[in-house]
Amino acid sequence: MKTVVWQSLSEQQRESLLQRPAITAGENVTAIVKDIITDVRQRGDEALLELAEKFDKVRPESITVRQEEIQAASDRLSEDMKQALQQAYANIAKFHKAQKAKPLQVETQPGVICEQVTRPINAVGLYIPGGSAPLPSTVLMLGVPAQIAGCRRVVLCSPPPIADEILYVAQLCGITDVYNIGGAQAVAAMAYGTESVSRVDKIFGPGNAFVTEAKRQVSNDFNGAAIDMPAGPSEVMVIADSSADPDFIAADLLSQAEHGPDSQVVLVTPEPSIADRVADAIASQLSSLSRADIARQALGSSLMIIADSITQCVSISNHYGPEHLIVQTRNPRDLVPLLDNAGSIFLGRWSPESVGDYASGTNHVLPTYGYTKTYSSLGLADFTKRMTVQELSADGLLELAPTVETMATAEGLDAHRRAVSIRVEKIKQSRASTLKEA
Amino acid sequence: MKTVVWQSLSEQQRESLLQRPAITAGENVTAIVKDIITDVRQRGDEALLELAEKFDKVRPESITVRQEEIQAASDRLSEDMKQALQQAYANIAKFHKAQKAKPLQVETQPGVICEQVTRPINAVGLYIPGGSAPLPSTVLMLGVPAQIAGCRRVVLCSPPPIADEILYVAQLCGITDVYNIGGAQAVAAMAYGTESVSRVDKIFGPGNAFVTEAKRQVSNDFNGAAIDMPAGPSEVMVIADSSADPDFIAADLLSQAEHGPDSQVVLVTPEPSIADRVADAIASQLSSLSRADIARQALGSSLMIIADSITQCVSISNHYGPEHLIVQTRNPRDLVPLLDNAGSIFLGRWSPESVGDYASGTNHVLPTYGYTKTYSSLGLADFTKRMTVQELSADGLLELAPTVETMATAEGLDAHRRAVSIRVEKIKQSRASTLKEA
Repeated sequence: MKTVVWQSLSEQQRESLLQRPAITAGENVTAIVKDIITDVRQRGDEALLELAEKFDKVRPESITVRQEEIQAASDRLSEDMKQALQQAYANIAKFHKAQKAKPLQVETQPGVICEQVTRPINAVGLYIPGGSAPLPSTVLMLGVPAQIAGCRRVVLCSPPPIADEILYVAQLCGITDVYNIGGAQAVAAMAYGTESVSRVDKIFGPGNAFVTEAKRQVSNDFNGAAIDMPAGPSEVMVIADSSADPDFIAADLLSQAEHGPDSQVVLVTPEPSIADRVADAIASQLSSLSRADIARQALGSSLMIIADSITQCVSISNHYGPEHLIVQTRNPRDLVPLLDNAGSIFLGRWSPESVGDYASGTNHVLPTYGYTKTYSSLGLADFTKRMTVQELSADGLLELAPTVETMATAEGLDAHRRAVSIRVEKIKQSRASTLKEA
Repeated sequence: MKTVVWQSLSEQQRESLLQRPAITAGENVTAIVKDIITDVRQRGDEALLELAEKFDKVRPESITVRQEEIQAASDRLSEDMKQALQQAYANIAKFHKAQKAKPLQVETQPGVICEQVTRPINAVGLYIPGGSAPLPSTVLMLGVPAQIAGCRRVVLCSPPPIADEILYVAQLCGITDVYNIGGAQAVAAMAYGTESVSRVDKIFGPGNAFVTEAKRQVSNDFNGAAIDMPAGPSEVMVIADSSADPDFIAADLLSQAEHGPDSQVVLVTPEPSIADRVADAIASQLSSLSRADIARQALGSSLMIIADSITQCVSISNHYGPEHLIVQTRNPRDLVPLLDNAGSIFLGRWSPESVGDYASGTNHVLPTYGYTKTYSSLGLADFTKRMTVQELSADGLLELAPTVETMATAEGLDAHRRAVSIRVEKIKQSRASTLKEA
């Protein structure tokens, strides 16, 4: 890890230090993904099976995973594993249930009632990557909010063979539509539908460069599907003062570094001695990791920044906008009001990132690559949409009419004005005639 | 307007009837916008001035609108206009203030505290189109939530000369950074910054095909800016039963039709006689409109659908997913729980769309083109982002540790497991030694 002293840097050096490495899908990936999407749209299931053979080196017996297979997976799983997954499920469900939006009703002026109501997105698709190890935690992070939001149809795609842990969590989350498909073709199938896979409105989940590019392409198509958020490499920043335990910090930095060679790992501290001791602890912990090679690569481009003060650490963090921010200082809670632009914040020495990755209750799908400035930690809101409702009484309309008529006139929209004035006339006429009769 | 009987259509005919016309920016627009963005990034203000001359046929004296000009605009405005704008401001502010998110804190299991906090997006850019008439209502719909959210910097761009109404509303909303720039170049300036225009994190607002394409391009760039939502032509659907007033429906349909030749206007009713009477009322109201030509073009591609029942009307609406939905039935409120996929819903005979367009309090920036299935009516949430925070006690961590360790092992992530187990060991050691000392 490179160590730099913040005060010694020019404004421009600071900017470039915190700059993320450029991500480009590459012309190559863009074109391949475009072809895959076209192929899936044209040939449906047949294309899915052929592409699975080509890219995943497996032609699944069937695209749809049968209920019996899901049940069998659950039967094979150890009790320990089931208990762990159930505990994580319970915590994530509790935190996401608390995010339910309450209906909102406001009488903005007498007789003018404005409301905001929330509805689940009807059909959502969850993409779960394959690879050497299964990712049941990602199924939890996507499946639990989809279930709580009340999405009517939840589709899960993952490259075959799908691990027992994934099928078990899918069952916990009430997901019945599970498909043996991975890669860009899975995204295409969910966005446009095939004979086996019914199309969804919004697609969630992480993936490799092809999956990310496919999500980008379908979300740019008016007839495609919406997506959760743009994706970038995973990141952690740790703010530490002299009270922090260097072993803990080293373990946290390494747990980010093992994700992938492109993981971003940054320590910011006003204590040069902490930086030194963390470096030693990393060296000693690194050797025993199974993914030491990956972690070593990630650490190669990682940073230790020596700041002037904790206040400066906070301002560096707000500028960088990390996906994960771990605060190991004497009074971490005091810093929360000052912190901005972070996906998820972990306070104090007993809150390692990995509890949030798995089981504390917060979502591990977070904006990366500086998108923390505009995007949110994934939550129930991402599986719903807000509609507004309004209802005016005759008196409410009479009272508001001059305002609307004046503004519509200024904007040159006659018919907008008339939609109001034609009603006002009728109200006045009807009241006049009632008065006459009486 | 074309009238069709829903029951007489095949499934496929129904699909294609509700299909929106294809939108394509055109290779041409894509390329022009790409060049404009490159030019603004390279040459900054100088490019902005030249592009204004080229496209808007005005070279503004200065890119920045001075405070005195804003004050002068306000002085020129009539009292009636100011009062109307103030009333609209008050209602919109009241409804959007009510949307403030409350901080959320949940103890998911003993000693494990998870929170959700909300922060304003730091810098936002508002685009206000020019054209024959000013659009102060759009400034309200974007400026009010930006102000209430507490965005630190709010930038407004509009092609010169900027109307007094727009400058006055900008002042009401506390916007001080107003720029004489329009078109794709304004979007580029806000996304990347120039000497005069400081860059923003997220860009909001409607515009022509060039503005829309520029927003799409900058939102696809990792170094660009986020945007509010995808844009399509404006739409209204009216559900009416025999209790509805045909004159009101005609006025509402026309107020949508006058927006532009590509506006979508649909009436759904179980009463053929209502459709006939609405057609007559449209014919009689149309002639006196200043924008009759535009409205006539829009009506050319518009629809009256005769349904079997109000239930079928609701299901057609949910399938179509209109931006605006007006419900003129005997008991409109009874339908709300059944309605889905609408941007904003107007209940009953005294709630024309134009009250929501201007002054009732709801936002008029709404998803169109079927995006109501996944996107929300613009609200305070779009000017903020949610971060999660968590804090575990030593006991909380001890209790949760086995779950995290089991899951990390299953996912093959050693360092994730160790970030927990290294802490658990220390807690146990420290408690053992305390016990020994005692």
